Amino acid sequence: MTKLPSIIKADGSKEVFDPVRLSTSLQRSGAGEHTATRITEAITNTVAQGVSSKDVYSRAFALLRKEGRPIAARYALRRALLELGPTGHPFEDFISHLYRAEGWQVETRKIMQGKCVMHEIDFYASHPEQKTHIAAELKYHNDPGYKTDLKVALYVKSRFDDIFSCDPSTRICPIDRGLLVTNTKFTSEAIAYAECAGVELLGWGYPTDNNLFMRMSRAKVYPITTLTELSRAEKNLLIEQGVIAVDEIVHNRRVLDMLRLSPERVGEILSEADGLLAL
Amino acid sequence: MTKLPSIIKADGSKEVFDPVRLSTSLQRSGAGEHTATRITEAITNTVAQGVSSKDVYSRAFALLRKEGRPIAARYALRRALLELGPTGHPFEDFISHLYRAEGWQVETRKIMQGKCVMHEIDFYASHPEQKTHIAAELKYHNDPGYKTDLKVALYVKSRFDDIFSCDPSTRICPIDRGLLVTNTKFTSEAIAYAECAGVELLGWGYPTDNNLFMRMSRAKVYPITTLTELSRAEKNLLIEQGVIAVDEIVHNRRVLDMLRLSPERVGEILSEADGLLAL
Repeated sequence: MTKLPSIIKADGSKEVFDPVRLSTSLQRSGAGEHTATRITEAITNTVAQGVSSKDVYSRAFALLRKEGRPIAARYALRRALLELGPTGHPFEDFISHLYRAEGWQVETRKIMQGKCVMHEIDFYASHPEQKTHIAAELKYHNDPGYKTDLKVALYVKSRFDDIFSCDPSTRICPIDRGLLVTNTKFTSEAIAYAECAGVELLGWGYPTDNNLFMRMSRAKVYPITTLTELSRAEKNLLIEQGVIAVDEIVHNRRVLDMLRLSPERVGEILSEADGLLAL
Repeated sequence: MTKLPSIIKADGSKEVFDPVRLSTSLQRSGAGEHTATRITEAITNTVAQGVSSKDVYSRAFALLRKEGRPIAARYALRRALLELGPTGHPFEDFISHLYRAEGWQVETRKIMQGKCVMHEIDFYASHPEQKTHIAAELKYHNDPGYKTDLKVALYVKSRFDDIFSCDPSTRICPIDRGLLVTNTKFTSEAIAYAECAGVELLGWGYPTDNNLFMRMSRAKVYPITTLTELSRAEKNLLIEQGVIAVDEIVHNRRVLDMLRLSPERVGEILSEADGLLAL
């Protein structure tokens, strides 16, 4: 086998193209082993030195689409999450939707009294059975190369410390755990600090045993931007109206009414959504 | 007396024009009571509804200039500090210069081990007589309406907590106090948090009894941008070469050589600098 070419990652760094990783990624996205191997071979034989990982992704995605839209759609999950922007608002709604699907009661933008000052908490959730109450700071970024860094972990630590050390008698609501949630990655510094200082993190690939991708896949909660049958403008319109996750259109197809689509297109969109949720 | 007009502050908010405050400010800047009263009356009689506080300032400054450049120059101190930008680097040099003038030994951009991670500290100073060691995070902004906010105070708190809780045997250098220094104001939330959580703050007007303006005036350390005899381009050239404070050109006029000025202009600049330092 000839030497593998280097590709350029989203953060601008170089790495040697790794066919095993691509194949794993395709399989994780629902492609069978045979399909994953076939697509990986096709990509490996043609990937050029210095091409961006985004291009490699797009080409693998195009090949996967031929195998059936639902699998391709799931493969595109991370990218779909990045398309929820430009503000952090839809991400907040999406995370709320995910937690609700997991059985939590969720409130957003809640004002909480700390020992020293009041804090606006992006996300507050309680679980009636687990009897746990969590508060989270949400960090959304639509740049795939962005990593949530040490400064964010540091200020979140102080914010939750201030809330935890508030006199329990004046506290508005119970709180057991403080989290920092992001759709991107964390810098290694942010992870080292958070693990040492006791800040819980949830990101696309962190923690390795129960990260955002795994949680989404397990709960089958996917951003509406995952659907390849919808145009960008249609997705934006749905997001503006608070329709943020694929299951929402499956559970209530009337939310599509605002798009004034032909019955044929509604059918196509619902098939893709059904296929995705059935994966 | 007729109703006083409203003026627009740098942060966009409105306030009723206050002649007493203007007069106090002129006197604080070195104008005698008589001069301050005369200028304040001239401004009060002509200030129009809806004019910006910047315009009021400029006109008072123009009148004060007629009384003698040094006083006007000192009046312009806060503005001069804002002109040190666009990066925070010259501000870092300026604060170092101020602390050295007060008898401190200063290092900048020092790496320090915390309990959890390493931190780059903008500013580290020790005082041989007071046997005190301080570390500071510096926040520079060239927008006069900007205020250093709660998030900054929160992350600085965690950063210093992490350094303080580092095992003393592995610590590179002693540290007794952690500071957050800015050339702008702090939000009231940032102040409330810092006072309660034990983060020391130093800003243009905070703390009221020993703020940055008072420290600069007492040490007679003024940014080079204070001098009205120098053009913007000449100031930038000096700053790039690390000449950051007025006393530097008084103590060593050769630092002006790089500007290739006529002996007359050098004389004018040094007179303004001398006058300012003699105030």
